Amino acid sequence: MHRNIRLLIEYDGTGYHGWQRQANALSVQEIMEDSIEKIVCHQVKLIGAGRTDAGVHALGQTANFYTTSSIPSGRIADAVNSVLPEDIVVREAEEVQEEFHARYSAKGKSYKYIVNNAKYPSALQRNREYHYPYELDFETMECSLHTLLGEHDFKGFMASGSSVRNTVRTITKAEMARELDRVFFSFHGNGFLYNMVRIMVGTILEAGRGNISVDDVQAVLSQGDRAKAGKTVPPFGLYLEQVFY
Amino acid sequence: MHRNIRLLIEYDGTGYHGWQRQANALSVQEIMEDSIEKIVCHQVKLIGAGRTDAGVHALGQTANFYTTSSIPSGRIADAVNSVLPEDIVVREAEEVQEEFHARYSAKGKSYKYIVNNAKYPSALQRNREYHYPYELDFETMECSLHTLLGEHDFKGFMASGSSVRNTVRTITKAEMARELDRVFFSFHGNGFLYNMVRIMVGTILEAGRGNISVDDVQAVLSQGDRAKAGKTVPPFGLYLEQVFY
Repeated sequence: MHRNIRLLIEYDGTGYHGWQRQANALSVQEIMEDSIEKIVCHQVKLIGAGRTDAGVHALGQTANFYTTSSIPSGRIADAVNSVLPEDIVVREAEEVQEEFHARYSAKGKSYKYIVNNAKYPSALQRNREYHYPYELDFETMECSLHTLLGEHDFKGFMASGSSVRNTVRTITKAEMARELDRVFFSFHGNGFLYNMVRIMVGTILEAGRGNISVDDVQAVLSQGDRAKAGKTVPPFGLYLEQVFY
Repeated sequence: MHRNIRLLIEYDGTGYHGWQRQANALSVQEIMEDSIEKIVCHQVKLIGAGRTDAGVHALGQTANFYTTSSIPSGRIADAVNSVLPEDIVVREAEEVQEEFHARYSAKGKSYKYIVNNAKYPSALQRNREYHYPYELDFETMECSLHTLLGEHDFKGFMASGSSVRNTVRTITKAEMARELDRVFFSFHGNGFLYNMVRIMVGTILEAGRGNISVDDVQAVLSQGDRAKAGKTVPPFGLYLEQVFY
């Protein structure tokens, strides 16, 4: 009998070339599959909800795999964690219906992005946030952020080179919160294009510095012109927070 | 003319064998002195407020050094940071009176200690907190913690082998706060003995598990018996937060 196991995974993306298995570069998927295989004693194909890029972190990546092993699902997290390196942790494991597919069953995702606006970077939070020591107009940033809410064609917020055909997505939450020198961005949506969160944050930050107006942000949406959006901010400030089913 | 420069320093202690310079092991002091010397172009002796152990972090270590360089103090942090590795950051630099001594002028210090009480450790916060996945009685912990407040002989909370004669210290703040699965301890005091914070936290945690009673904690204080206190918790959950002058 094939059982379908769903995992909730946290990882520090610093040491990996992203989620997806690839030749000549270490990926989270490869390490996860190798670790699960040691436990279930057969080859495993782990399906992730989304491919995070090199350096991007996950608090709640979701993945599933099929197994013929009879290991109780309550034992899987402990067992897999015992062979995983410290920078990847299985937080939950449970048996789900055969039809469940981490990627195709996903209804939406949430991401957060952390910006450190202090004069100097943080020694302890390096690789966990983007140091951006410029004066920011938070009201303009809030306005720009709200422009992104709702259903839009996000073509202008997609990395060039991506081959996705339908670039319409719905963002149901786009928020920022400030705590001392840090700015925390939070996005919920039914899907995100390649580099979309990082380009959105880059654009909001440029708006905060006065390099881009709120109208420009609107124009990126209406005209789909990537060149008018801000830079892609670095991966290490980005966290895949949750996948919704 | 010799100017006296005070630095406020943040560091990730993971990669260092503590603050103090020593043969055959990399220390924060050594890296700092080497970096400052590159900027001021003469040998430097950096005086730290306190010696943090291997793996212990600092949010606000304070140190001072004398220099004949005429570099403006407003330029020092930028200049030193430009040669420091990413896990050490100078947050502030200012010229102070000749008499200022980072260690002897200190009136007190504050430390925090982070415990992760979740079932599994965190991939992202590893080396930043102590994973302690046991059921805890927080009321007993609060009571035990309050026992430590005030002036006491903390001999029982000092690592054996330390040669300090006067082991009386005053703790002016001993607090714990919970946020989801994490417990944050905060201590302010006029001084701390060797490993004192880590033994206090270890003792409070054992009290939380029911292995030590509040009376036992009192007995460690009144009898000075290290054997009755809890284990020394690991360094990577500990942060030197601030030095008071």
